Order: sequence, then structure tokens, then C-alpha cells
Amino acid sequence: MTASQVPPTSRTKLRRKSDRGRYDRETIDGILDEALVCHVGFAVERRPWVIPTAFARVGEHVYLHGAVGNFALRTLAGGAEACLTVTLVDGLVLARSAFHHSMNYRSVLLFGHAAAVTDDDEKRAALLAIVEHMVAGRSRSTRPPTAQELRSTLVLRLPIEEASAKVRTGGPIDELADYELPHWAGVVPLSLVQGEPQRDLASAPPGG
Amino acid sequence: MTASQVPPTSRTKLRRKSDRGRYDRETIDGILDEALVCHVGFAVERRPWVIPTAFARVGEHVYLHGAVGNFALRTLAGGAEACLTVTLVDGLVLARSAFHHSMNYRSVLLFGHAAAVTDDDEKRAALLAIVEHMVAGRSRSTRPPTAQELRSTLVLRLPIEEASAKVRTGGPIDELADYELPHWAGVVPLSLVQGEPQRDLASAPPGG
Repeated sequence: MTASQVPPTSRTKLRRKSDRGRYDRETIDGILDEALVCHVGFAVERRPWVIPTAFARVGEHVYLHGAVGNFALRTLAGGAEACLTVTLVDGLVLARSAFHHSMNYRSVLLFGHAAAVTDDDEKRAALLAIVEHMVAGRSRSTRPPTAQELRSTLVLRLPIEEASAKVRTGGPIDELADYELPHWAGVVPLSLVQGEPQRDLASAPPGG
Repeated sequence: MTASQVPPTSRTKLRRKSDRGRYDRETIDGILDEALVCHVGFAVERRPWVIPTAFARVGEHVYLHGAVGNFALRTLAGGAEACLTVTLVDGLVLARSAFHHSMNYRSVLLFGHAAAVTDDDEKRAALLAIVEHMVAGRSRSTRPPTAQELRSTLVLRLPIEEASAKVRTGGPIDELADYELPHWAGVVPLSLVQGEPQRDLASAPPGG
């Protein structure tokens, strides 16, 4: 299978450590699909904002959602450009030298303009995709949104058109002379692990 | 102990779900100290960038580092305002309704202007703090930076002056009528777990 490529632009083409750059959709989509949250950046009068939020990829788009009054979503829907960044940390890279310490990671930067989704079917599909993104299969085991819940939710669609991934893997890379040092060097793998599910036994909302 | 407070500003005061807002340094520092990476946002001619990077807090400041040619660091050192965001995801909150699905998380937003660190002692201390932030005690078991390595590294200092934390904990909060639904509801805890350290047995740099 030939993976489709996202053409690098002046913003997405890696200038430094360019061997870590990836522009194929298979890599980009894999990172987007694995990460639970993204960090969405935008500027209001040159002042930056970076907001963590849930999201989901559906085909060629990333979907975001929130209350209709949500400041970040309203700003984006109003035309502010977005930089949506997703990062998975895979390991601590401990080198013999402080200088060459690093991390193994996989990240995606996605630039673009988001649009508010107005079609109710697309909106429902996006909201269920965000639930599916948390736990696969979950959207069939939960009450779907009502018309009122749909109206109170703002859903944005961001196309995956200007994007790149950056990937570091492997062990530390030290200076030749440092390999004689006695310091432990290697990788401490990291992974986000699910604990035992804790069932909610309440029969009414807290305080309700 | 009375925790010191960071005075909320128009940017850091939570407008929605304000009960999730925290402005005490104990909470803010705890989140900064636990998170391995931050997402730094800035704007260049109204176009946003969000870059994941390592960091460390030392007292009243957060330190960032990278190569002297690093685009993000140079932009920040040149006067662009920063929004540094840190997010810890603690759990998936599965509600009886799709609408009330959520996540448990702890996040910090820190706004400000970063300055390049020019004092060599402060620079060394910041670089070792970034190593310590990865693995406590590690800075004593690695070769410290040489003068040349120091010169080739740009270190930025960002004061913790305009900051807030946001914290969600606990189970799902559904609509009263939905508590009768048969759907499983509760929390799936998430944590970033270290795997077995993998020692680097190389005696020279890969390909070197």
C-alpha cells in the first residue's frame, strides 16, 4: 500500500532534524487516532492561546466540540487560524551526557481554518466519533444526543491539508568519547495505561 | 500552610465551569512538576504555532531549552508572547449519555514573555533541572554540559505570573432521567506508566 502524502509547506517542512519529519497520512492519522487530547492554538490580536481538548478524526477532517459559548471554538469559527498539535510521549531517552538527553515521541502539527458544522447528521456523527475515540464501541452503549443537546453544542471541522508528523525513536546518541563514561544510558519506555474501570453507582446527579 | 495565589486576570479567570478553576501555586506547580512536556503557543503575524517541548519549573520560573537556531525559542526570545499549556489526563469519564462524556484532567495555562538566559550558572542550573524533571536524581549521573554545549543551547525563562489551573475529577454527571438507563457509566483511570528501562549497550554512536 502506498501511503498518501501531505505536501510539506514552509510551515510543516521540518527545518531542523529533518530526518524526524513524516508527511504520510498513515503516520499522521495513526498519531491523531491514538492521542486522547489535542492542544489547539490560535491568536487573538497577536496574543496566543493554547487549549487542551478532546477531538476525533473522521476521514479527512478533525472534529472539535464544546458548548456554543466556548471562547476557543467561537474564535476559531470566527475565522482565526488554528494550529492543532497532538503529542504522544513514548519514552525518556537518558544519555551519558545531560546535553543528549531526549524523549521518544510522536507528534502532529495541523494548521488550518476550522468551520462550524451546521448539518445535523454530520454533527451527530462527529459527536459519536469523539465518544468512539475515547473508547471504541462506546457510542452504541450510550444515549445519543437529543435535538436540544445538539443545539447547545458547537462542532468544528478542520481539514487535514497542511500537516506534518515528527517522530523520534531509539536510544540515546552520545558523543563518541562519552561512551566510555560509567553512566547508565538507555530508554525508559512510557505508556498511557488504563486502570480498573470504576463504575458509577449513583442513581441521581451529585447534589441533584 | 497557606498556599500562595496567582491573581486571576481576564485571560486566566475561568469563564465557564468556573468551579474547575484553581489559582493557587501549590496546584499549578504540582501540575507543572508532574507533566513531562508542555505545549508552547505563540503567534507570528497572527498565525499560531503550538510546539511540544520538554521543560522544568525552578521556583518562580519555567525554563525551556533547545538549539540556538530553534525557531520557536528564537521567536519567543524575540518578544512574541507565549501561552504555555500543560495537560495531564487522569481518566475517561463515561456517562450514560454521549453528551455528558468527559475526561478527568489537570491542566495549566501560563501566559507571559520569555527571556533568554544569559548567565551561565543559571543556564547550567536550568539544563540540569530539565534533566531532573525527567528523572529525579539523574543530573548527578550524567556528564554535565561543556562550555561549547552551553553556547549551542538557548535557554528561556518564563515567569509564573499570569497562570491558572483547571481540574476535573470524579464520576459522570448525567441528566436525572438518564440514571435509569442500562448503560455502564463510570471512570476509566489513566496514568502514564514507566516500562522496564532498556539499557543502551552501544559503545559508539549509531552509524558513527
